[in-house]
Amino acid sequence: MKRRVEQVFAHLESKPDAVVLANATDPHLDQSFFHLFEVPGGLFEGSVAVAHPDGSLDVTTSPLEAETAHLAAKHDPHVKIHVVNRDGPDSLEAVLRKLLPGTPTVGLNFPELTHGWYLRLEKLLPSAKFVDATAGVRHSRAIKEPSEVEKIRKAAAIGSRVGTEIPSLLKAGMTEHELAAEMEYRMNQYGANGRSFSTIVGFGPHSAEPHYLAGDAKLTPGVSMVCDFGAYYRRYACDITRSFHFGPRDDELKRVHDTVEAAQQAALAVLRPGVAGKVVHQAAEDVITATKWKGLFNHGLGHALGLAVHDGGPGLGPTSDEILEEGMVVTVEPGIYIQGHGGVRIEDDVVLTKNGYEFLTTAPRGYLEVSA
Amino acid sequence: MKRRVEQVFAHLESKPDAVVLANATDPHLDQSFFHLFEVPGGLFEGSVAVAHPDGSLDVTTSPLEAETAHLAAKHDPHVKIHVVNRDGPDSLEAVLRKLLPGTPTVGLNFPELTHGWYLRLEKLLPSAKFVDATAGVRHSRAIKEPSEVEKIRKAAAIGSRVGTEIPSLLKAGMTEHELAAEMEYRMNQYGANGRSFSTIVGFGPHSAEPHYLAGDAKLTPGVSMVCDFGAYYRRYACDITRSFHFGPRDDELKRVHDTVEAAQQAALAVLRPGVAGKVVHQAAEDVITATKWKGLFNHGLGHALGLAVHDGGPGLGPTSDEILEEGMVVTVEPGIYIQGHGGVRIEDDVVLTKNGYEFLTTAPRGYLEVSA
Repeated sequence: MKRRVEQVFAHLESKPDAVVLANATDPHLDQSFFHLFEVPGGLFEGSVAVAHPDGSLDVTTSPLEAETAHLAAKHDPHVKIHVVNRDGPDSLEAVLRKLLPGTPTVGLNFPELTHGWYLRLEKLLPSAKFVDATAGVRHSRAIKEPSEVEKIRKAAAIGSRVGTEIPSLLKAGMTEHELAAEMEYRMNQYGANGRSFSTIVGFGPHSAEPHYLAGDAKLTPGVSMVCDFGAYYRRYACDITRSFHFGPRDDELKRVHDTVEAAQQAALAVLRPGVAGKVVHQAAEDVITATKWKGLFNHGLGHALGLAVHDGGPGLGPTSDEILEEGMVVTVEPGIYIQGHGGVRIEDDVVLTKNGYEFLTTAPRGYLEVSA
Repeated sequence: MKRRVEQVFAHLESKPDAVVLANATDPHLDQSFFHLFEVPGGLFEGSVAVAHPDGSLDVTTSPLEAETAHLAAKHDPHVKIHVVNRDGPDSLEAVLRKLLPGTPTVGLNFPELTHGWYLRLEKLLPSAKFVDATAGVRHSRAIKEPSEVEKIRKAAAIGSRVGTEIPSLLKAGMTEHELAAEMEYRMNQYGANGRSFSTIVGFGPHSAEPHYLAGDAKLTPGVSMVCDFGAYYRRYACDITRSFHFGPRDDELKRVHDTVEAAQQAALAVLRPGVAGKVVHQAAEDVITATKWKGLFNHGLGHALGLAVHDGGPGLGPTSDEILEEGMVVTVEPGIYIQGHGGVRIEDDVVLTKNGYEFLTTAPRGYLEVSA
């Protein structure tokens, strides 16, 4: 993980003496902790990672997860584990003061640190000066190493397999909830460590609500549906959406699907390193704006993806000024939503390559009518 | 939700003019936001809840989740929804300044607010004075209303049903991961909105690691296992652990199981309002300390449960000084872990009643040998 730690400091204009990441209670864990400390299991509630400019990393853990931490650190000479106890020479306070002596300048990851932890660090390290290290943490995390891309690729392969199977799962009378349960089961069977977010299955008019979850609506012939779901694989997420039509064709929704596909293609045609995220969004929006469904694409085109589904790095929204770089992983997900009727969204995960992009999700994305 | 808002202020010694809860990006959402604003779906990333001493609540939302928010607020005259846009008169800044005019004292929930959001609030409300409202938020959330207990009870019923079925799922040669996938599938089929945390299934020596997840180990006759899992039901969690023995009896682990059961019974015998959490822990620990497995119960007896699995309220740890009250929901989960051999943990969820407690989880907790 030495390189990831070095990348944090490489992207900070004013170099702190250390960067500290602190986990509160789940779900308030700093996902960047798991970017710098690659540990397969464990929650590491209350743990602190101290990253140094030389690429080394100190990690504190409670006795409960000491074994897990030691196993993960065994093959990395740059990581050192400190098992902390409630008080005495192994207290968190004693360990932190030893790791950060004098009057250090300490960088923190403000977007993922709780304010409670910030106040606690002020007490634990009264001589320290705290500064914002968000830019460095964010950039280190945004550019995925090949081993990270491989985990997202595996998650995406699991999601794609299930996405490909959805048509075979559809039966008239089944509920959105039942379909979601079956999709999640299959992801787990295919090796996922659970779902990466609450599965969205919206039948008919529900498909026009982008953040609808799965409910009790039953599948009836003649409706479209949006299935937006994802798997975790060793802490890394995928995020995929496919839209299907069940039973007798709805000509308008067929044309909507074609338009969304065209919007995605237009975005992918301009997606490459050196381009600002908003340019990619605009390419998709322009396609939709030129149709009768102008204004019905009401969200950003995509977001960074990695340890979190909304990974915090540069995205593809209408105001995303940041320039895309090789190694970033983003979603590309245009959609059109006709209230009261139905919606279509197509979402894929891609990694930016030197000259363009590569698909991580592979399920067919063309229009598909499933026999009722 | 008026009562929940009032309870926040009732438990603050110095009353602020308002209490503000702010959600960052998932998973950095303040779960207390969903305690005060009972909305079934949606993430509400970036949303802010402003709670007032008269019990009313203002909630901001992006256009994306406006419909969901309006539906949830429709039946509650004390909740008002504000759809915010990037700029103009409906910007978050304009809305917050209108809701919090002058030089207000604003209470914040430090344990679940990101430091990034804290700095943003300082900018949005430059005349405000920010104070710690953790005690009020924490207490309001710790004492569950009957409608909250019913959701946990439903989640616990789902978990208990799966816990009861686990013996019928066991087959020699199956992996921990396969068993976990089957358990999660059944929870979803029985109405869960997903799992409340990563399912723990540990076979043999793995059962001696309290935070082990599910891996590739295969089930072989003669081993014990620990299954620790939970369901979400409408945002509320359950958390249940059962331990089983597969195939030919292991006399030591049978006695370990009996001891853990006795420890749980001893804890339940003293569990009631008016008692400090540490007293309940001690009752369980004393039972184990009196055996040859002294020292092998290496975690706290239990934790608060609700919107989060580790809900932040008073728990049952060895240093839990807080006094238990009617309406709190806690886990009771003693365990004994013999490294390299196996572990046993029994975990139930209970709600504190006027004079004692009531079980929410109901799966059989006695020793069970499953034929291999």
